[in-house]
Order: sequence, then structure tokens, then C-alpha cells
Amino acid sequence: MNLILLTPRDFQSDTEVLLRGRRFQHMTEVHRAEVGDRMKVGRLNGLIGEGEITGRGDDHIAMSVTLHKQAPPPLPLTLILALPRPKMLKRTIQHATALGVKKLYLINAYRVEKSFWQSPWLAEEKLREQCLLGLEQAVDTAMPQIELRKRFKPFVEDELPAIAEHSRKLVAHPVTDVPCPVDIQQQTTLAVGPEGGFIPYEVEKLQEAGFQSVHLGPRILRVETALPVLLSRLFPAD
Amino acid sequence: MNLILLTPRDFQSDTEVLLRGRRFQHMTEVHRAEVGDRMKVGRLNGLIGEGEITGRGDDHIAMSVTLHKQAPPPLPLTLILALPRPKMLKRTIQHATALGVKKLYLINAYRVEKSFWQSPWLAEEKLREQCLLGLEQAVDTAMPQIELRKRFKPFVEDELPAIAEHSRKLVAHPVTDVPCPVDIQQQTTLAVGPEGGFIPYEVEKLQEAGFQSVHLGPRILRVETALPVLLSRLFPAD
Repeated sequence: MNLILLTPRDFQSDTEVLLRGRRFQHMTEVHRAEVGDRMKVGRLNGLIGEGEITGRGDDHIAMSVTLHKQAPPPLPLTLILALPRPKMLKRTIQHATALGVKKLYLINAYRVEKSFWQSPWLAEEKLREQCLLGLEQAVDTAMPQIELRKRFKPFVEDELPAIAEHSRKLVAHPVTDVPCPVDIQQQTTLAVGPEGGFIPYEVEKLQEAGFQSVHLGPRILRVETALPVLLSRLFPAD
Repeated sequence: MNLILLTPRDFQSDTEVLLRGRRFQHMTEVHRAEVGDRMKVGRLNGLIGEGEITGRGDDHIAMSVTLHKQAPPPLPLTLILALPRPKMLKRTIQHATALGVKKLYLINAYRVEKSFWQSPWLAEEKLREQCLLGLEQAVDTAMPQIELRKRFKPFVEDELPAIAEHSRKLVAHPVTDVPCPVDIQQQTTLAVGPEGGFIPYEVEKLQEAGFQSVHLGPRILRVETALPVLLSRLFPAD
């Protein structure tokens, strides 16, 4: 938790907040926060700044906050990701959020096991929790928007063209001669397949939608490794 | 397992191998391998090629292999990494291996908890297992070399100058104005701190040894995310 994220309901006034629950616990147990301590805070979907602890009870911390700094810029990206297995889903959401992804579609694909869609971690509240952890890690405040699409074909045929309009369209796919471009300053829609990759039919459908296949070199990477590799390569931060 | 890694003791002759244990199990249970199936194989620290299953018993698989292709090129890198917490250690070793790291020093730092050094995952055999998983994932055969250094100062003062000689020396450190360079084709020694970063004294010691501090943008990333981000940025694969 490199940033304490504040939600509208935390605010008692424009500058006074009251924190309970998970953040109270983390601040007392991990940061060992005492009255007078100062910490980095940010308003959800708003500015970043500093908070000073002004009071501490058995179950709450009071802070006085000043917010003045913009959150880091979002990636100019819409990420289309085949739903990862539940074990990887949490980490992947956290990573993607920490890296600045703000628009994420979790989609079906042939090699996504049906059972993955039953994961309790797909509940809106659970996804939001993982996003919060990613934002707190990366010192960011802008909550990503995550959409679930359980049918590949209707998504790619009917929805994707509008989603990807006016953007550079890439699909990470090992079986191509074109290396993934480096340092593009361009609105991008990036599709990443499941473990084992998209099947040829899926790659074809994406190509019909204007997506170009790009590879990451001879190494086959897990999705959780490939994602930071791709994003860092496309958008190295200043 | 995108590659079946073969060790010298698997070879019955120049082209015949016999596999038992973990690989036998994986090939029968995950790949559902049958006689006649062909799979990608590689000789540990050697060439990559193809194997055809010629026989299958209750506890073993026999293959006939031909090896003809070079493993992917290693990163021109020595990685100096503050020992991650045990939970992260396994993943970090796997990621680093999959990404092509061949020389890794796990070192102590002020913010490395003493207990981390007690982790059973630091045993040579355990580290080797994680490296094997990383190689099998990335379709690589070259086993990384991992060294443990439990004392920061003697390592940095006495050993690091020779290790880093004739290489570009970088330390990932958020508190600097210099962004990490992009796409350098240069032998590099890269130091990455623990959660919470190197302390100023440690950064100074590294700077005295010729290391330049570089940052990855305004976002603070976990080591397991920062590592693929750094390596992809420094060495985007062709």
C-alpha cells in the first residue's frame, strides 16, 4: 500500500477523512501509524496528495488531507484478454491495474476452460478489490473498467470494431514474423490469448477485425509475464 | 511445459531417451502423450529439436529425438536482485529464467527480512527446479547460474566491481530523474532492490561502484512486475 485510496464516503469534510476496516488495519499494523504521521493519499478517480493522521481510535483513523497532484497518466490502451485461470486472474488484474490499464475486456476463447467463468473472483466486488490493490501499489487513483464477455464471436464481430476504432490493433501471437513494435505513442487495442494461445480461427477473426499479429521473440511467456513485457515494450514510461 | 528438457542421464544412446517421474507424469496427464506423438524437446544447456514417442510403459516414456536448433539467445545481463520474500521468490526465479536471465545474484539489503534467508526454496535443488520450470515455459535450455550473497557491503565493495566490469551498470530506483533507457544492445548489470527499495546508503554504495539510478515512471511496481517491465524495456526481443 504505497497510497491510501480515499472514497467519497471517507470524507467528513473537504479535508477530513475517517478510515476504518482494511485500511485502518493496514495503517496500524503495517505502517504502525501514529498521530502526526504523514502518508501519501489519493481520492478515488481524483487527485493525489498527503494526509496527516489527526486522531486514532480502536477501529478508525482520522486524517487531514491535501490533494494537489494528478495521478499518473493512463496507458492509451484497451486490453482484450482471454480469461486467465482463477489462480492467475487476481494477479493479472493487479498487474494490469498497476501498469496503468484502464479498460479491460475479459473474453472467452477456445482454450479458456469453461470452469474459469465460475470463479467467484469474477464478481464485480472481487474484481474491484484487486483493482484497488493494484492502484494502491502503483500510486494511482483511476479505477479501471472491466467488462466480461463470455462469447468470443459476437464480441469480436459486433462489439470489437467500435471498441478498437481509430486505434492501432495488435494481437500477441507467437506464430508470426512481425515483432511487437517498441515505444509507440498511439491509442492501441491489444488482444492477448489464453495459455496455449488463441486458436487459428480466433486469430483469423481478429485479423478480419483489423488486428495485426505480433510476437515477443522466441520465448513463450506465461500471460502474467507477457503482459508487463508487452505493456512496457509498447509504452515505456517516461 | 512447452519444451521437454532432457538431461544427460535421460539418454540411452545419441538419439534415444527414457523419461520417468515428473516429465513422464506431465506428458501422460497433461499432454496425454501416445506412441507416435511428436513434441518439442531440448537438451539441457544444448540444442532444441523434436522427439517422437516410441514407447510407453507404466512409469516411463521412450522417445527418439533429433536436436538441431539453437536455444534462444540469453539476455546480455547480470541481474543483482535483493532477495524477494519466499512467496515471491519462486515466481521471480521462474519469470527471470523465462525471460532469459542467465546470471543472477540474490543479495541481502536492509529491507530484506532476515527470515527470508531461511526459506527452504533457497536450497540449490529447489532453485534449480524453478529454473527448469522457467526454461520449459520459455522453450530454452540454458540453465541460469544463481549465487546467494548474504552480506551487502562485502558483495558490493569486493565482488561487484569485477562482476560488472565492462558492462553498463544500472540500479532501478524510483527516486531519480533519469528514466530507464530503452532498447540498449549492451552487456548490462542491473540491480533491483527489495520491496520498499534500496535504502539511500545502499544506493550510494552502488553509485560508488559505478551504477546509475534509473526509474520506471511514476508507478511503483512490485518486483515481480518490475522485472519483466525492466527486461522488456532494456532488451525488447526481436
